[in-house]
Amino acid sequence: MSKGTVVLAYSGGLDTSCILVWLKEQGYDVITFLANIGQDEDFKAAQKKAESLGAKKVFIEDLRSEFVEDFIWPTVQANAVYEDRYLLGTAVARPCIGRRQVEIARREGAQFVSHGATGKGNDQIRFELTCYALYPEVKIIAPWRIPEFYNRFRGRKDLMEYAQKHGIPVPVTPRAPWSMDANLMHIRWVGLVACFYVFQSHAPADLYQMTKNPEDSPNAPDVLEIEFRNGVPVKVTNEKEGKSKDSPLEIFSYLNEIGGNHGVGRIDIVENRFIGMKSRGIYETPGGTILLKAHLDIETFTMDKEVRRIKQGLGIKFSELVYNGFWYSPECDFVRHCIAKSQDNVEGKVQLSVFKGQVYILGRESPKSLYNEELVR
Amino acid sequence: MSKGTVVLAYSGGLDTSCILVWLKEQGYDVITFLANIGQDEDFKAAQKKAESLGAKKVFIEDLRSEFVEDFIWPTVQANAVYEDRYLLGTAVARPCIGRRQVEIARREGAQFVSHGATGKGNDQIRFELTCYALYPEVKIIAPWRIPEFYNRFRGRKDLMEYAQKHGIPVPVTPRAPWSMDANLMHIRWVGLVACFYVFQSHAPADLYQMTKNPEDSPNAPDVLEIEFRNGVPVKVTNEKEGKSKDSPLEIFSYLNEIGGNHGVGRIDIVENRFIGMKSRGIYETPGGTILLKAHLDIETFTMDKEVRRIKQGLGIKFSELVYNGFWYSPECDFVRHCIAKSQDNVEGKVQLSVFKGQVYILGRESPKSLYNEELVR
Amino acid sequence: MSKGTVVLAYSGGLDTSCILVWLKEQGYDVITFLANIGQDEDFKAAQKKAESLGAKKVFIEDLRSEFVEDFIWPTVQANAVYEDRYLLGTAVARPCIGRRQVEIARREGAQFVSHGATGKGNDQIRFELTCYALYPEVKIIAPWRIPEFYNRFRGRKDLMEYAQKHGIPVPVTPRAPWSMDANLMHIRWVGLVACFYVFQSHAPADLYQMTKNPEDSPNAPDVLEIEFRNGVPVKVTNEKEGKSKDSPLEIFSYLNEIGGNHGVGRIDIVENRFIGMKSRGIYETPGGTILLKAHLDIETFTMDKEVRRIKQGLGIKFSELVYNGFWYSPECDFVRHCIAKSQDNVEGKVQLSVFKGQVYILGRESPKSLYNEELVR
Amino acid sequence: MSKGTVVLAYSGGLDTSCILVWLKEQGYDVITFLANIGQDEDFKAAQKKAESLGAKKVFIEDLRSEFVEDFIWPTVQANAVYEDRYLLGTAVARPCIGRRQVEIARREGAQFVSHGATGKGNDQIRFELTCYALYPEVKIIAPWRIPEFYNRFRGRKDLMEYAQKHGIPVPVTPRAPWSMDANLMHIRWVGLVACFYVFQSHAPADLYQMTKNPEDSPNAPDVLEIEFRNGVPVKVTNEKEGKSKDSPLEIFSYLNEIGGNHGVGRIDIVENRFIGMKSRGIYETPGGTILLKAHLDIETFTMDKEVRRIKQGLGIKFSELVYNGFWYSPECDFVRHCIAKSQDNVEGKVQLSVFKGQVYILGRESPKSLYNEELVR
Repeated sequence: MSKGTVVLAYSGGLDTSCILVWLKEQGYDVITFLANIGQDEDFKAAQKKAESLGAKKVFIEDLRSEFVEDFIWPTVQANAVYEDRYLLGTAVARPCIGRRQVEIARREGAQFVSHGATGKGNDQIRFELTCYALYPEVKIIAPWRIPEFYNRFRGRKDLMEYAQKHGIPVPVTPRAPWSMDANLMHIRWVGLVACFYVFQSHAPADLYQMTKNPEDSPNAPDVLEIEFRNGVPVKVTNEKEGKSKDSPLEIFSYLNEIGGNHGVGRIDIVENRFIGMKSRGIYETPGGTILLKAHLDIETFTMDKEVRRIKQGLGIKFSELVYNGFWYSPECDFVRHCIAKSQDNVEGKVQLSVFKGQVYILGRESPKSLYNEELVR
Repeated sequence: MSKGTVVLAYSGGLDTSCILVWLKEQGYDVITFLANIGQDEDFKAAQKKAESLGAKKVFIEDLRSEFVEDFIWPTVQANAVYEDRYLLGTAVARPCIGRRQVEIARREGAQFVSHGATGKGNDQIRFELTCYALYPEVKIIAPWRIPEFYNRFRGRKDLMEYAQKHGIPVPVTPRAPWSMDANLMHIRWVGLVACFYVFQSHAPADLYQMTKNPEDSPNAPDVLEIEFRNGVPVKVTNEKEGKSKDSPLEIFSYLNEIGGNHGVGRIDIVENRFIGMKSRGIYETPGGTILLKAHLDIETFTMDKEVRRIKQGLGIKFSELVYNGFWYSPECDFVRHCIAKSQDNVEGKVQLSVFKGQVYILGRESPKSLYNEELVR
Repeated sequence: MSKGTVVLAYSGGLDTSCILVWLKEQGYDVITFLANIGQDEDFKAAQKKAESLGAKKVFIEDLRSEFVEDFIWPTVQANAVYEDRYLLGTAVARPCIGRRQVEIARREGAQFVSHGATGKGNDQIRFELTCYALYPEVKIIAPWRIPEFYNRFRGRKDLMEYAQKHGIPVPVTPRAPWSMDANLMHIRWVGLVACFYVFQSHAPADLYQMTKNPEDSPNAPDVLEIEFRNGVPVKVTNEKEGKSKDSPLEIFSYLNEIGGNHGVGRIDIVENRFIGMKSRGIYETPGGTILLKAHLDIETFTMDKEVRRIKQGLGIKFSELVYNGFWYSPECDFVRHCIAKSQDNVEGKVQLSVFKGQVYILGRESPKSLYNEELVR
Repeated sequence: MSKGTVVLAYSGGLDTSCILVWLKEQGYDVITFLANIGQDEDFKAAQKKAESLGAKKVFIEDLRSEFVEDFIWPTVQANAVYEDRYLLGTAVARPCIGRRQVEIARREGAQFVSHGATGKGNDQIRFELTCYALYPEVKIIAPWRIPEFYNRFRGRKDLMEYAQKHGIPVPVTPRAPWSMDANLMHIRWVGLVACFYVFQSHAPADLYQMTKNPEDSPNAPDVLEIEFRNGVPVKVTNEKEGKSKDSPLEIFSYLNEIGGNHGVGRIDIVENRFIGMKSRGIYETPGGTILLKAHLDIETFTMDKEVRRIKQGLGIKFSELVYNGFWYSPECDFVRHCIAKSQDNVEGKVQLSVFKGQVYILGRESPKSLYNEELVR
């Protein structure tokens, strides 16, 4: 008899494929769920794989538009930056994925959800806080925190053997020395082998995927105009090319394209994880970096000085909450509400150029400007 | 009979030369004071000019080392950034200049100090708050706020006529459309004519002086290692060139040279002045920008997460206080003390590359790192 | 010919009566405005007096209900306390008075407003910021800052002489050693003669008017139940007496009565004025003190812990803004909006006893309580 | 063979006596430690009891002076109040006790420490964070979180049976409906039976021990003068009685005596525990309440306004950290350092009266007052 139904966040990779089979072994019915949040993935292949491994149902869902509108846009309004540098690309994706996973679990009558996140990172926390907030009765199966699982799979070799034994397709290429978390907003790289893991070794030049090396990027800038209303972009125009985009997903994707082509948004940082340790990450956030700079400019131009100071503090709080996984919490709801309110007059156009890894603000205009030309001179 | 002695902050330019003569006309003995804080200036010519215009004494003082050590270093420790963007290069110079001006006034028995700052900007406030804090009994003569003065000199034309009449050398080149405030830390450009004054017109490419246009900067990066102790740089090394610097003034000057050569630290922003108006500024802060990024990195690497959060709030407060001119105030003393305390363990080396307007952190190491390699994996 | 029309905030006392006549002398048409915000005043006598002194129009307006609902209630929601002690009874009345004064000025086509506040206190600032915010084109006549006025009236004696000369009724009793500012929310006492002005002399026992001396107050407590919705009281019940009140003005007045009878809400403090000086005040705030304690209790009981922490910071900011006169400012609007949002679930009943100057919370209940009885044990 | 040595925080009560015996059963050598932090306890009896139950060593230590100087004084400097009401009497005692316990463990070569705190409260966290901070290698045995223990002892009845079986003296009086935590600073009462546990039932009049019922307290006030230096009291004088005290422990004890006699410091509150739940507590904090009011007064009188605002925020942070058990943490060290620095000028005398549950500030004086009598008038 089945122990119940689990909705498993499934990536198609080795780890979650093994978890799928292991959960079945433990007596669960397994539904897989794979969110398309803009990562480069063969979704069809993943579907087939999950089906062949015995998933009862397979959900592959395109969440890209809601990811931009419901999750990235509020971080733009907040100028959300964790510890002065990290733009929260992974942190902001977790509640988006978790929200849908929980919807599926409710709809399918599943009492369990499961994920393949490790037991030491932030992602497990972000994922689980989302699930508990939106589906308080749900039970979470986190194999990498269950002794029966982590004692059985002490390394990649154990996973490979298990895969071979259970007909799970095994990766033929050797494992990369970096793990990657990719979505529409960014790619995060975390070192897996000692030499990259430490803090002083430099990241290899060929690591990056979303952004060109600025040394190889175009020798002439692109000039964009971004139009904001209520603190979110409503249109982006590349004047030279005469292109413009005006849906949230298209705007963000286009900024990724331009930013990526010019090598914008690469950072190598050390950050403080929620559970007290420091970790090093390499990030590529091309579109997000452009938007942060443009939004900062139009916001300072249109917002009252003292409101801005109070809102700056709320934005820092928001960033901490999102980083720590509390997107769905009373305090984050409250802060998001306050920040959104602060954006009522954040309206206007910012011109900027993108070149060799940098974003240069060139000018701005607004019908709501608080600037009084007479007074300043 | 003399009304008393005034120490005038003298730049050698048209405005303060007219003020010098005007103060004499009003019956004051005038001592001029010109601080060398790293601006590009013909100090000898200024001295001669002041003497020829009747200054009782002329002081020209090299404050560059104390500017770096006593004023720039604390802003590095604080990660001081006003409204998320401005690195406070002008704001931090005012108390440095004012401190010496007041010392001279005390030493020379002058009851008055005077300056040529306009009546609408931040600089008059910064200057005057410094003077009152350090020399509470001093009287300040601010000609641009005195009706007898500003009604007489309603524009540049009036100053030119006055100059010609009183033997003040008159500039032969036409007036630049931008005003410039330069020191070791930065150059600030503020538009003087309508077309540049507004917010949407783009700054001309040939405006900049401290930084090369990134389009023309070298096609290969420079790689530096900066060593910090107590949150301030104690050594910078350019490994390729085998150069290294280890005195504060040399370190900062070298970072300006490298940063400037690679076009680092240009921003075009709108900021909220102390007295409620918005103003646009173009800034070049090459060395300061490199140091901000490097310090942020070593600080996050070595400081406890929760201390960092509290210190981040204090740093924002510090930036507001400095911007508003309150360097010498009980609250700024207090905040500076707290921030300095937070830097006890901020020690280590940061490697970074400087290229095409960007600073890329490459790695870091520290004897005080809180990172526990075992734990994170 | 008239210089224009002034709406003068008129109290009926010696100072503003002299100002009325003086403004007429200066060539203005004067409209007087006297707000009833709950102070003990002979409004009819004041009306007659103003008319007899030549006021063109006389407005006496009962603002008590809007004072409670629009001004006191938001301070209750905010737990507004300035510098941990002062409940802002005067600060919160100024924008209420100023709002109506400006409405009258607009309606009557007056270009000027005037007030009798001194040139060193907070009240002039609070009053004027309100006027400028709501009627930016208005011109303010502040006689106590105009040299022609304050040089003419150097002391009370000069006012008395002027009064006698111009048929202004002159007070027959000697001047009290304390000045009083009274409204529905509180009475503020500030010493006028040296011995009470200093900080160490004790306030005389017979000073107080709103509150009984706790030594003489009843020897048995009153027990009240206050019901809150959205963070404001909607009903107060005295169970023993079987009385209950449910309109804002009645609720607040009843709490004043009970609190006053039991000597609640007396404080003797030193506070930091907006313009950098310290001043001593004695305050009586009976109803406000009861509400602060009751609201704190129901809020902590029903609000999420982390929301509470963020809201606590906003409440402190709100208190500073209100104290400094910025009720009508973008930042205070913003903060008020955020605080009001935080009160969505602040609903329930608080039982308390009032006795000998103290308020004791006895218990509380709420349909929205976040308390989980199972969990805590 | 012994599993090692445990230092057990021993109260002499039923729970920790059972834990003592149970730990021995589990194979540990047990050293008991009982701190005298001012609670009313028969320390000799507790010593005998521990010895008779097989404790290898018994430590009973008088920590009262260091409790006042090292723990209470910093909370006075901070105006530490959790959630606007709770004065942290229990929170501040835990690190004091834990510090000595860890010292004993180190000195005695014990690898383990143990305590009898429940698994749902704040005290376990406060205790354990202290131990880990000061003795990172220590292992903590928390029986109430160990299934073997809590499954065996599901209620008081199981403890009683176990006690009888193992010769542990069994309390003869029935259990009180309230649990009590007493020390020099306060008594905390938490309901143990349903009717008192809920939030609306009123506390019984005979509950209190440190404070008289204000209805029965003296009908005349006591008038005290408290002298502060560096923000801590250095002398208290009762002018009428001619008594004065000037050692920290004597000062605090005397304030407890006077405050208790007048019924000062009773509160009934709901608070948010560290682990997200709300709990109700009744507190008696007589001396602490007097000191909070007196310190607030002298601090506002002597401290710069803007320093005070920054320090107020740090004090709130400090209160949260202490409540949550982080006394010994880098961030609390940092905040304590900053707060202590802010107290440099907090010096002077405060006169106050204590009467019927209230503290009334009567006046204050200071050699460091920032008040300028000339200016204010």
